[in-house]
Amino acid sequence: MSEAPLKKGHRIALDCMGGDLGPSEAVAAAALALKEGIIGPDDTLVLVGHEDNLRLLAFEHRSLNSNRIQFKNATSIVGPDDAAMTVLKSKRDSSMVIALEMLKSGEVDMVVSTGNTKALVAAGTIKVRPMEGAERPALAAIMPRREGHFIMLDVGANPEATPAQLVHNAVLGAIYAQSSLGIANPRVGLLTVGTEEGKGGPRINRTHALLKAMGDRINYIGPVEGFDVFGDACDVVVTDGFTGNVILKTLEGLVYMLRDLVGSKVKRNPMYLAGGIAMFPLLRDLKGKLKPERYGGAPLLGLTGLVMKAHGSSNRQGIASAIRLGLEALGHGAGSRMLSALAEANKVISETPEEA
Amino acid sequence: MSEAPLKKGHRIALDCMGGDLGPSEAVAAAALALKEGIIGPDDTLVLVGHEDNLRLLAFEHRSLNSNRIQFKNATSIVGPDDAAMTVLKSKRDSSMVIALEMLKSGEVDMVVSTGNTKALVAAGTIKVRPMEGAERPALAAIMPRREGHFIMLDVGANPEATPAQLVHNAVLGAIYAQSSLGIANPRVGLLTVGTEEGKGGPRINRTHALLKAMGDRINYIGPVEGFDVFGDACDVVVTDGFTGNVILKTLEGLVYMLRDLVGSKVKRNPMYLAGGIAMFPLLRDLKGKLKPERYGGAPLLGLTGLVMKAHGSSNRQGIASAIRLGLEALGHGAGSRMLSALAEANKVISETPEEA
Repeated sequence: MSEAPLKKGHRIALDCMGGDLGPSEAVAAAALALKEGIIGPDDTLVLVGHEDNLRLLAFEHRSLNSNRIQFKNATSIVGPDDAAMTVLKSKRDSSMVIALEMLKSGEVDMVVSTGNTKALVAAGTIKVRPMEGAERPALAAIMPRREGHFIMLDVGANPEATPAQLVHNAVLGAIYAQSSLGIANPRVGLLTVGTEEGKGGPRINRTHALLKAMGDRINYIGPVEGFDVFGDACDVVVTDGFTGNVILKTLEGLVYMLRDLVGSKVKRNPMYLAGGIAMFPLLRDLKGKLKPERYGGAPLLGLTGLVMKAHGSSNRQGIASAIRLGLEALGHGAGSRMLSALAEANKVISETPEEA
Repeated sequence: MSEAPLKKGHRIALDCMGGDLGPSEAVAAAALALKEGIIGPDDTLVLVGHEDNLRLLAFEHRSLNSNRIQFKNATSIVGPDDAAMTVLKSKRDSSMVIALEMLKSGEVDMVVSTGNTKALVAAGTIKVRPMEGAERPALAAIMPRREGHFIMLDVGANPEATPAQLVHNAVLGAIYAQSSLGIANPRVGLLTVGTEEGKGGPRINRTHALLKAMGDRINYIGPVEGFDVFGDACDVVVTDGFTGNVILKTLEGLVYMLRDLVGSKVKRNPMYLAGGIAMFPLLRDLKGKLKPERYGGAPLLGLTGLVMKAHGSSNRQGIASAIRLGLEALGHGAGSRMLSALAEANKVISETPEEA
């Protein structure tokens, strides 16, 4: 983007304790991000967690012996099944909450966490607060399609979004598509159950009317169906957090089922064996393409600071890629552009009568 | 089912005009259904559409020269893009509406149509009416999983279902699973975005409370996530028509993308060629397993008569299989069991306080 400021140093807090693979993988991710130049010469990465433990783990990676790496102690851990309220009430000393507090106070510009989604959404919303003009954050996932990728949001932060919140998702998602996918004028579609106007119920109809009223403030191409999203219909698919989360998880389930089916077929019928072996690189490629976490992280868009959620099962590549995605968004000045886009959207929302 | 009455003859109206492949495929489906014994010796199949045209087409199939085949003239056709209101107001002489009128008047026991879903749902609801205790019909699709199949409903009839309507879907889907999948005590799951209680918003929470309150009237196993549905989590997945429809179409989109990806990979890299050819039977099997229309038809559950929706692109096998599924449901006396199950469910709903 030509208007992007020269990239200055950024400070990142990495919640090292929430992932399925434990703090050793988070520390390895930090080493990888340094080695690959994701963490630039002016950036700082703060490893948040059991400090003694983290320092021991860091000792194994030469690259982490750097003044760009810092440590912040946190004595407890948010578990994968901890309810959001539990975390907010009794885990204030957890690596997740301490990282979010650092973002709130301005000590860091961004938090990356593999911790449980519901807790991160709740704690992020309450600690970091929605940005002016936004009501609830939205989780934006990068998904594969025939050629390239598209963004779907919300995939789980706000299950029952209102029309205004869906419009917010649309403008936030469009700006994120610019920084993450490099698409200058991303096409935005509204996920529904029929592409005729009038399908999908009053909530979708009102959202559609508002998005049309946005005029050239957004490149809205209209309603899209689930069938179209893997084609080249649009770059940003807008939906509520319930539908988006269910789609994401159903797709993951289907991909795993496919993998198992291929495996069992090959076992049962030797005729498939030669083919199975020859197809192995193809299946591996497909798996890579279909993995929703290929891009490593999903930002919680619409907060006053940048919170990147990485998949709980992320390995070092996944976590490093979440750091990269976040830094790209910061480098593009996405935050300030989101603020003005939200203000414009809210003006349109308040000026568009219900029966538009 | 031991309590099922001896199967007597049933009368089926086949809307021959709405499918993508036209009336010749519908007539071929009728011939196939007779030849394969789907239409029993006491059953009657009424072909609804342009009568002269249908009689000419039927002339090509020896098996249709039978007193079990009848014709009913209809002068107009519901197109794939006709809005529901257009159909109800100005297409009363269409094959779809005439078939539904025959069901309403008791001339037939069941309608099978490949016509457009929205029109069929609207015309079915208004002409045939919801059965006592139901508010809105639900479309129930049979989906593949690792081993066997499961039922998902609603996949598109009622986009914004209330908790009571979701409970109706649960009891209707369980009875349909008995007749279509032969599962005596089907496990019912509520699709949500997290399996902890309290996730998924107030609508899901209230539905969950009601389903728990049903006690042993239903084999409710609790919330399920999209990730679980292709495993062996449950036999009936309950959701609203918006989410269900989006999932169905997204899965179709993914399957087509996979097919194209495999094709293009094989073309681009000769290393894949041998594998591609050897894998062809496997891909064909997978495609068969993943085709949502494998079972040919989705009933519109909760109406006073049985309406089977077959996929618009159904071939003769698909349409014949929709007829078979419908006849199985009629043979099991599913209708009367649904009536009593709905009455029980409504009693529980009215007796369960909001803050249960």
